[in-house]
Amino acid sequence: MTLPERPTVAELSGNRFEVTYLLDTDDQADAEDRAYKIAVEQTIEFPPDLAPDGDIRDHVIGQVRVVSATDDGRHRVVISYANETAGPDLAQFLNVIYGNVSLLPGVRLEKLDLPAEKLVDFRGPRFGREGVRALIGVYDRPLLCSALKPMGLSAQMLADMAYQFAIGGLDLIKDDHGLVNQPFSEFKARAKLCAEAVTRANQETGLNCLYLPNVTAPAHKVLDYARYAVEMGAGGLLICPGIVGLDTMRMLADDDAINVPIMSHPSFLGSMVTNPTTGMDHYVMYGQLQRLAGADMSVYPNFGGRFSFSEAECRAIVDATESDMSHLKPIFPAPGGGMTMEKVPTLNAFYGRDVVYLVGGGLHRHSDNLTENVRYFIQLISEPVS
Amino acid sequence: MTLPERPTVAELSGNRFEVTYLLDTDDQADAEDRAYKIAVEQTIEFPPDLAPDGDIRDHVIGQVRVVSATDDGRHRVVISYANETAGPDLAQFLNVIYGNVSLLPGVRLEKLDLPAEKLVDFRGPRFGREGVRALIGVYDRPLLCSALKPMGLSAQMLADMAYQFAIGGLDLIKDDHGLVNQPFSEFKARAKLCAEAVTRANQETGLNCLYLPNVTAPAHKVLDYARYAVEMGAGGLLICPGIVGLDTMRMLADDDAINVPIMSHPSFLGSMVTNPTTGMDHYVMYGQLQRLAGADMSVYPNFGGRFSFSEAECRAIVDATESDMSHLKPIFPAPGGGMTMEKVPTLNAFYGRDVVYLVGGGLHRHSDNLTENVRYFIQLISEPVS
Repeated sequence: MTLPERPTVAELSGNRFEVTYLLDTDDQADAEDRAYKIAVEQTIEFPPDLAPDGDIRDHVIGQVRVVSATDDGRHRVVISYANETAGPDLAQFLNVIYGNVSLLPGVRLEKLDLPAEKLVDFRGPRFGREGVRALIGVYDRPLLCSALKPMGLSAQMLADMAYQFAIGGLDLIKDDHGLVNQPFSEFKARAKLCAEAVTRANQETGLNCLYLPNVTAPAHKVLDYARYAVEMGAGGLLICPGIVGLDTMRMLADDDAINVPIMSHPSFLGSMVTNPTTGMDHYVMYGQLQRLAGADMSVYPNFGGRFSFSEAECRAIVDATESDMSHLKPIFPAPGGGMTMEKVPTLNAFYGRDVVYLVGGGLHRHSDNLTENVRYFIQLISEPVS
Repeated sequence: MTLPERPTVAELSGNRFEVTYLLDTDDQADAEDRAYKIAVEQTIEFPPDLAPDGDIRDHVIGQVRVVSATDDGRHRVVISYANETAGPDLAQFLNVIYGNVSLLPGVRLEKLDLPAEKLVDFRGPRFGREGVRALIGVYDRPLLCSALKPMGLSAQMLADMAYQFAIGGLDLIKDDHGLVNQPFSEFKARAKLCAEAVTRANQETGLNCLYLPNVTAPAHKVLDYARYAVEMGAGGLLICPGIVGLDTMRMLADDDAINVPIMSHPSFLGSMVTNPTTGMDHYVMYGQLQRLAGADMSVYPNFGGRFSFSEAECRAIVDATESDMSHLKPIFPAPGGGMTMEKVPTLNAFYGRDVVYLVGGGLHRHSDNLTENVRYFIQLISEPVS
């Protein structure tokens, strides 16, 4: 024999977490069969009949807890995984909940149920809603964020734009997510000039606008860029976890030398949600996973814009940003993509107070005075919901 | 005015690269409209009518080069981007070719056309097919790889298994991609014991089996894990770029202190390809992007296995592993997932000599003597294609 007959896995705590998947089958037996295959695939990835008896078979293999028909002709399955299958790390956690499942057609990750014993592995958002509000000093209305763009402007031109935004009272200014380290606007020059411009404006206004440079940088430079930007006075960071990996964002959130809020941008992540029978629900991708990975604000395309998310999908994201996750703080939903002033009343009614509105072109369109446009927009979003 | 009227973007070289997308529309005008919106979205992400005249409008915005109907009722569009929109980095390159496109329904990335002037930004695979063969010393047949598993075994048990594999003459032994740093088999203990076991076996056989531990680790530990493993004698590395980001793999490939071949595993990447109208083609995901990001071997689920890839999709991957990409070396396709001995003749006819076969459970099933099973399997794959 080459495999031990009954290996004892002494490290098993008995603590488990649950993952819910939707399968595109209306057949109960088929659903049960596929559920068991997922439970095996995501853990031992080994023919179950060849797996050794004992703890591996009894505890390490995922356990199918529920297989039930849904109203829309699918099946919902709940699989329980031993905490130790993921170990303490976010990267391997992602692999357990979804790694090879991503290669299986007709399986969608719907929801994570993580008890406190599992959530202790994650610090989560360092600031959350309350922390971000405390930094900015705005408590009673939605927050407003815009982006420095278009690509092609020099670092100095973007810094001038940042100054005008900040003088108008904008709460957050981010780099466009497409600005990183191109020759027309190199990262360190831009981060320094823009941080200084916003600091100068804050001194004049008495407000606390935060500037968030984009650190979606090469893997060996992310930490250096982020720490440099914070040293220069950046009040937050923007990052695209779909490009650099969710755990890279987590690394920044956990870094005590950084200690500023993090805004997560959905670039490269869309195909994970856009097809209803594969990928994962918006609730998981733009809510639960962002909180696990330390985002304080989760950007996503708003309903009614140039992208495809529905009102229900946006509602699910909002729910996930504030659902109970033990010590993990609630974070801001940050809808963007085609925001215009005309939509503000509808959006205020939908989102209420706890939202960060991302406005890009819409802010430039009102007039050619950016500072006045910011003031007007903030007044608009501050009106009480009728 | 807050935006400069005609900013000059002095850094533009005039060099551009092209990206082909498939749009799920049979209407020419709709396709042209959407193509232009993509060209804007992926670059300036700003209302074109508000963008300043001059270089930004003329060169920075993507340029639609082709919009043509396909045989299957879609439209193929080719968009050209200035090299500088991506800068020199893989991360921002990914953002330009696909970032916000991922959020648009009905757009699929089909192909990258990268001239040598763009490819100079990427070192690519350090070894490629020839380099991996030279390390192992096997030139005239497919290579065989298996995985250490199931999860739950101790580091010592896995090292014993590695020894048995290597004594049998296996070419490559990887950690299962689900083994990283769980309590039953911590990374450094496992990497050390398994590397030592394979080194000992190589001394006995005179062969050069490579052991590839899985470094799909927390972002702040990946480099440390990889360098440690190589110091301990690991002959290669396994990583899941869908979890840690493609650029993290690129970082390892570029690191002179590492200098071993890299195998890329598709965990978490499946939803990027499984729906034909979104995401990207297998050619791009498992071929072109893997080479840009430095993989020497690209793992994907083989046709006829427990996953969903078709023969045509697997053929596209093979084509992309060896297509002309200037100085970027051809790499090994590494099909896995449900490989059995019975399939070898079919697979040899399909793949020929330049392939790494991943065999998991199939290798354990032949008999309870792993060493003999390896010998038998290698004999099978070595038979000339009829």
